[in-house]
Parts: sequence; structure tokens; C-alpha cells
Amino acid sequence: MSSEAKYTVVLIRHGESEWNQKNLFCGWFDADLSETGLKEAQTAGKLLKEKGFTFDVAFTSVLKRAIKTLYYVQEELDLHWIPVYRHWRLNERHYGGLQGLNKSETAAKYGEAQVKIWRRSYDTPPPALEDGDERYDTSDRKYIQYDHVVVPRCECLKDTVDRFMPYWHDVIVPVVKAKREYELNTDMLNVPLTYLESGQRVVISAHGNSLRALVKYLDNIPDSEITELNIPTAIPLVYELDAKMKPIRHYYLADEETVKAAQAKVASQGTVKK
Amino acid sequence: MSSEAKYTVVLIRHGESEWNQKNLFCGWFDADLSETGLKEAQTAGKLLKEKGFTFDVAFTSVLKRAIKTLYYVQEELDLHWIPVYRHWRLNERHYGGLQGLNKSETAAKYGEAQVKIWRRSYDTPPPALEDGDERYDTSDRKYIQYDHVVVPRCECLKDTVDRFMPYWHDVIVPVVKAKREYELNTDMLNVPLTYLESGQRVVISAHGNSLRALVKYLDNIPDSEITELNIPTAIPLVYELDAKMKPIRHYYLADEETVKAAQAKVASQGTVKK
Repeated sequence: MSSEAKYTVVLIRHGESEWNQKNLFCGWFDADLSETGLKEAQTAGKLLKEKGFTFDVAFTSVLKRAIKTLYYVQEELDLHWIPVYRHWRLNERHYGGLQGLNKSETAAKYGEAQVKIWRRSYDTPPPALEDGDERYDTSDRKYIQYDHVVVPRCECLKDTVDRFMPYWHDVIVPVVKAKREYELNTDMLNVPLTYLESGQRVVISAHGNSLRALVKYLDNIPDSEITELNIPTAIPLVYELDAKMKPIRHYYLADEETVKAAQAKVASQGTVKK
Repeated sequence: MSSEAKYTVVLIRHGESEWNQKNLFCGWFDADLSETGLKEAQTAGKLLKEKGFTFDVAFTSVLKRAIKTLYYVQEELDLHWIPVYRHWRLNERHYGGLQGLNKSETAAKYGEAQVKIWRRSYDTPPPALEDGDERYDTSDRKYIQYDHVVVPRCECLKDTVDRFMPYWHDVIVPVVKAKREYELNTDMLNVPLTYLESGQRVVISAHGNSLRALVKYLDNIPDSEITELNIPTAIPLVYELDAKMKPIRHYYLADEETVKAAQAKVASQGTVKK
């Protein structure tokens, strides 16, 4: 951790899901991890362990591909016991009428340019789901205790940012900033004071677009550029933050080549399959 | 659910752990599930699914054998998304100086009668761990945020009852009694009113002795009898409760023969191996 850094937050995008594998727009559909995704999650956990990371608290969405990615990370780090908070605000962007469609077929039908706009424009939402569409289910038990309007009919990335950020500000940041005073109870007199004063170590296991929302905010990325930022699956992304939660630096727990290859893989989704 | 019953709470004792397999006193040691234990947990989940059970909230200890048992149950029921609360008050009884010892060897050394007293007496604690014993670790991260006295040096069953019950009264019961008002939002006009008024469906994945503590309380079992009650591993134990949280009936999700065989297996632990 660099010297001005006070807090560390690690972001993990879930491993490949069964729907990623089939090249379908997934969004709020609760697809499971694929075998590859499971292994990616285990690798992420092993990497974190190898680099000496540990966590006090975890946050994830209510979608099993993120929850299970977190589970395999917990398994590798022997952290089954830490509190895990699941919340819909960490969910993937809702793809509306595109949800469940094959990305290549959609590209063939609407054209790659339109698909790219829907996937990557900051504020153009995809087609909205209508009442009666079985994909628009406000009685889904995951969301039924909330005001029904929390279930979107579709989301552009801006919508995802708008509904993710309140959770960051109201819940995650206060947890990150909560002092780990209990370190003082231990016989760790050689530990630097900065460590003793630092907050809780948080890991967030979520989705391409909910994490993009956070990265946009933290690094102050303009609307026009965020759509080109691709977060690879299951490579831990470490943010070191100062006392005001301003990022000092960020880095992936992987060499540059691995990250580039993984980003290219994500970027190529939604193009017509040859 | 019988007609007077208003609430349902399902108890699950974790599947076999690697230390159960080796016949060691486990207590607060964080042993993993064995392969058999993992399969037992999956079977419990499949049984619950087959019988139409579902849950709104889960409680478990901070020990991975209970957390992972719950995880496999969630997997079978497709309930990864429900809130899971982990707490040390649901932990297994702390076996003090016996922790880590082979049960058969301890029986050979101290005599089967003494081991039975330590394991099964209501208020005779086993030998207490002393300062400096590596098994007495008040800096274990699982407990370090608490007053250090929460980490026991040993527990008799009475101690386990005394530290489990506050969590039942203060946390679990209020959650069970919290109305699932959101059921009213759904188009379920044919659902009987009792169902609409009923509380949250809770599953508790815990340990032989923390569950025994709860069963003792619910069924008002005398001190002298509770020590003979054996809860088999990973067979869901269903409690139906009335509006005042008084049990109407309870039953295992298995036929009587299976339950008896599983109880006999648990009871035979701690005898000298021939």
C-alpha cells in the first residue's frame, strides 16, 4: 500500500456465466457460473491469497454468478465467516428487451452499431420491457419487499450509475471507513500506525456495469469514455484510497498482457459471430 | 403446516466434518466439511426442495462446517440471494482442553464415564484452556471485535444454552415474527390468510449443541434429559410454532428408521474404538 493510501477496496467482476458462454444478454437474469467461471473465481481467490490480501466485509449483488464468485474467493482465503451483504443495487445493468437474446443474432438483426450503442452508450437505454412480458417480473422474491419501481424495465449505464451510487455512499463507504479498532487489542506493536488506523478491508463481487459505475465515479471518467472501459472477469482490481476516499492508485492483480487479453475478450462480445 | 401453526423454523446440524471423521473433539476449531458431509448437505437441500420448503432468511455460526452446509442447501433451493447472518453465538459448544483430542484416546485415558460426563453432563465443564495454550486464541479474527471474554476457555452445555439464547430472543425471533407483508403485493388471492399473515421462513444451520440448546428451550426439556437427545447431522428438523412461538409439533424430514440410525451414529462417538 502506498504511503498516502489509507483504505483498500478490491473489486471483482464475476467469472464467466452460462449465459456469457452462450453470448446472451444476461442483465438481471440469474444465470449460474459456467465451469470456466467457477475456475476463474478460484484463481482470483488464489491470487488474492498469494498477494497477502484479506478482507473484513464483503458486498455482492443478489445474482448468483456474483455471489458464487465471492463464495469461491472466500473459500480460497478461508474467509467463510466474514459478513456478506447482498443487495440489488450491485446487480448488473438491466438489459430490458435485449435480455435473453443472443448477442450475435441481435447484432445481425439490429446491426452491430445499434447493439454497440445499446451496450455502450452512456444514456441510451435498450428497448423497455412491457407489462405482461415474462422478463418483467415485479413479483420475483428477490425484489418483492421493495417498492415495485426498483425493478427496472431497462437501464442505460447512467441508470445503473444512478442506482448503484447511493449504496456506495450510504453503505459501503461507512463500512470501509469504520475503524478496525480491534487490531489494537492484538499484540502487534510492530504494525505501523497507518495500518492500525486504517478501515475495514472490503471486497466487492459484482458485475461489469455496476463495477464500471463505481470506477467511473472513483476515477472521474467522462460519460463519453466510460463506455470503452472494459473490466475483465475475475481479475481482482485493487483500489487504494486516501482518507477522503480519493483513489491514490489502482491496479489489477495480473500482468498487463493477461489483463489486455481479458479486456479484449469482453469487448468482442456483441459482434457478429463469423 | 397444522392449522394453529403460524411460523416455521427449520434447524440443520452441519454435515460430517473432517474432525468428526477422525473422531476428534472439534468445538470451536474451524474444521472443514468432509466429502461425506458435503454430500449430506446436498441431500438435505434436495429433501427440502422436494418437500416444497423455501426460506426468507438464514442464520449460521462463524464456523465453516455450518456455513458450507448452508451454502449447499442454498444451492439446491436456488436461494443464494437470501440474507445470511453469521454469529458466534450459534457456534458449537467449546470443548476446552478436549478440543483436538481423539475421542477414543480420551476415553481410553480418562475412562468412558468421564468422557460421557464431559460430553453429556448439563453443567460439568471439560478442563479449561489456560493462557498460553495455542487453542485459547483471543486474537482469532472471528472474535476480535468483541470483548475478549466471549471466547470461552471451555463450555458445559449450560454455558452454550446461556450464550445461544440471547441471540434467539433478540435476533432470530424478531426476524421470524417480521410479517412477510410483501406477499400481499402478489396476485395470490387464493392463499389462506394464515399464510399471508405468517412470518419469515427461517433456516438455522448450526451445530449439535447450539441446536440442542434451542430444542431444550422450545420443548422445555429438563437438564437431566437434554444430554441424551441426539440431533442427527444434516437431516432438516422442522419446528412449527404458534403465534407465541410455542412449538405445535416438530418432525425430521426423513423416515423414522433413517433418523434413529443417524442418532445412534452420533451417540456412539466418544466410546473406545475396539
